[in-house]
Amino acid sequence: MNLGIINEVRKTQPLIHNITNAVVMNFSANGLLAFGGSPIMANAKEDAADVARLSQGLLINIGTLTEEQLEAMIRAGKAANEADIPVVLDPVGVAATEFRTRSFQSILLEVRPTAIKGNAGELAHLVDIEVETKGVESIGTGNNEGIARKVAEKYATTAVLTGEVDVISDGTEIKTNHTGHPLLEKVTGAGCLLGSVLAASLTVSGTVMEKSLAAVEYYGLAAEYAASQLTVNGPGTFVPPFLDALAMDEKEWEQSTR
Amino acid sequence: MNLGIINEVRKTQPLIHNITNAVVMNFSANGLLAFGGSPIMANAKEDAADVARLSQGLLINIGTLTEEQLEAMIRAGKAANEADIPVVLDPVGVAATEFRTRSFQSILLEVRPTAIKGNAGELAHLVDIEVETKGVESIGTGNNEGIARKVAEKYATTAVLTGEVDVISDGTEIKTNHTGHPLLEKVTGAGCLLGSVLAASLTVSGTVMEKSLAAVEYYGLAAEYAASQLTVNGPGTFVPPFLDALAMDEKEWEQSTR
Amino acid sequence: MNLGIINEVRKTQPLIHNITNAVVMNFSANGLLAFGGSPIMANAKEDAADVARLSQGLLINIGTLTEEQLEAMIRAGKAANEADIPVVLDPVGVAATEFRTRSFQSILLEVRPTAIKGNAGELAHLVDIEVETKGVESIGTGNNEGIARKVAEKYATTAVLTGEVDVISDGTEIKTNHTGHPLLEKVTGAGCLLGSVLAASLTVSGTVMEKSLAAVEYYGLAAEYAASQLTVNGPGTFVPPFLDALAMDEKEWEQSTR
Repeated sequence: MNLGIINEVRKTQPLIHNITNAVVMNFSANGLLAFGGSPIMANAKEDAADVARLSQGLLINIGTLTEEQLEAMIRAGKAANEADIPVVLDPVGVAATEFRTRSFQSILLEVRPTAIKGNAGELAHLVDIEVETKGVESIGTGNNEGIARKVAEKYATTAVLTGEVDVISDGTEIKTNHTGHPLLEKVTGAGCLLGSVLAASLTVSGTVMEKSLAAVEYYGLAAEYAASQLTVNGPGTFVPPFLDALAMDEKEWEQSTR
Repeated sequence: MNLGIINEVRKTQPLIHNITNAVVMNFSANGLLAFGGSPIMANAKEDAADVARLSQGLLINIGTLTEEQLEAMIRAGKAANEADIPVVLDPVGVAATEFRTRSFQSILLEVRPTAIKGNAGELAHLVDIEVETKGVESIGTGNNEGIARKVAEKYATTAVLTGEVDVISDGTEIKTNHTGHPLLEKVTGAGCLLGSVLAASLTVSGTVMEKSLAAVEYYGLAAEYAASQLTVNGPGTFVPPFLDALAMDEKEWEQSTR
Repeated sequence: MNLGIINEVRKTQPLIHNITNAVVMNFSANGLLAFGGSPIMANAKEDAADVARLSQGLLINIGTLTEEQLEAMIRAGKAANEADIPVVLDPVGVAATEFRTRSFQSILLEVRPTAIKGNAGELAHLVDIEVETKGVESIGTGNNEGIARKVAEKYATTAVLTGEVDVISDGTEIKTNHTGHPLLEKVTGAGCLLGSVLAASLTVSGTVMEKSLAAVEYYGLAAEYAASQLTVNGPGTFVPPFLDALAMDEKEWEQSTR
């Protein structure tokens, strides 16, 4: 585990502007705070750009997109690009409706993402590869390395494809991560929170590839740690120790693995 | 407990479109996911109908209604009716303000509900019976069987009246359920989540009456199970094992009652 | 601990209208319900005034302010003033953007607050004192007693300044509170929920000063109690027993301190 990157997040406590879906706002804020970031959530088009300018990173998630929110996302994204802070895009359910597909494309026309993070179905849709989906969940398995590489190439970004194996690509290189736990799929917003954690990780020093890998690896290890606790019997009892694990420092990790 | 119906939900994992109130979105999504459904939340009038058409069931809850959301509800409800998927209406606080009363009536003019689920005060209001209420909570006790029967008759639906004893009626028959636990009343959105669980249950085979009964019975048993855990000392510690219990399979239930 | 005031809240279960930010709605509702209040959340400008008139207290929190919500806040606030019920204002992140600063001033032009509750940075901004802030968090330490006193004087209200030491002032008198726990700062919305708890406490008999002190003192003690539980290892496991502690009655407190 690359604790150097994680430790730098904790040291700098980057302010991350989250324009995210209404379902996960609380969970994302608590998880990001536990991880070491400083969450700020502002959805109004009136001050989205101002909040982005205050921040060290920006996360845009279209999970419960409205026209009003889309305008805030574009304004914040442009301000973040101008301020040269990292921008993570999470195209939740982008393939589900024509409105989401069109809206996400309109974001991509105006905002340059540092990373695009999504499941196989979402990322495949962005490069016109067919993968079976169900609502906002991807259920097919495809050539995930190929999908990640194509997304990175097409959008000149780093693709973070999450799944049983996470695949990260900048269009040339490929990195994979095998940490994680099935209980994450039983928690609403586990993928969304990862987007916020990724945005925080991208604010520190290092390459986008290595910082992305550190983020998904740490996230998966936190899930494994939580799932191994004796108090955990299902998705409800999993969440509290998972949030604790996101907050664990180097010393606590050492003690936990003895 | 009618585990046949519940097992079919788990097997089919129906996608349920929830247009619900902002307070409970996370809890409803997590609870529905635990129960075996696949939650999708989309509030925008731009794609509410598209999301309903993708789904196997629809839940409409007016707990934090806005004009914008009302339009999304009507579009989604009409699409669901056309697609012949079950629609559950939850008239949260319908009697509290003139805006909610009028808005709910406008939904009923355009959308045919498979079931209307609410507390005694809410359902009584729909059939012009006076019951004492406090905010969005019903505190009076009336002739609940009569109220449920009248709602079912007047709106040509199945009424699911929740309370210490749950009463279900299709206008002719009456079924009652006695499972449940007082701690549910100390958890915000316990009634709202039940609406989502009911919508998921209505997607499988069987009559609306028997599926509604299976849903409320299972829900109450999950609450009883959670409340019996030694780790539970109040409303905060109740929620994690309650979500776990919503996810328990047949084998876990058998082991739990030995 | 002034349990007389807290007990009266539990006895009367005041209905509190919360127009609050989207991040904390669920946590605030659950925490207020645990504490003994009856939460109602209504953001629509169409019925905000009607809901305020139904209620015994009003909490306005600008944490995720939009133009639409601002209109609802002003309508509800004016209705609350007319009905002579307590109004608590929480100027979350008021200094962060020009939109929030201007909007909060427009609320203050039309609504008379019973109390203004915020951290040092937020309250300092209201009286043009400079304090270092980060996003919505205050990180500087200033002359907190002076800030609280000035806010109270300038806005003819009671100021509740939260921090390691909470400072309450009506412009003349100063009261301080030393209960609390650092884990509260690792939970999103801990300050926001306190606003709702304060609004509930202001509905019972007593002076605003003594009711405010009782609220912050109780809240801090609940945090201390939760943090002392053996099951608590971080911010995630802290929340469930904290909500339990907010619900504890006199007898449970006595037993807990033996």
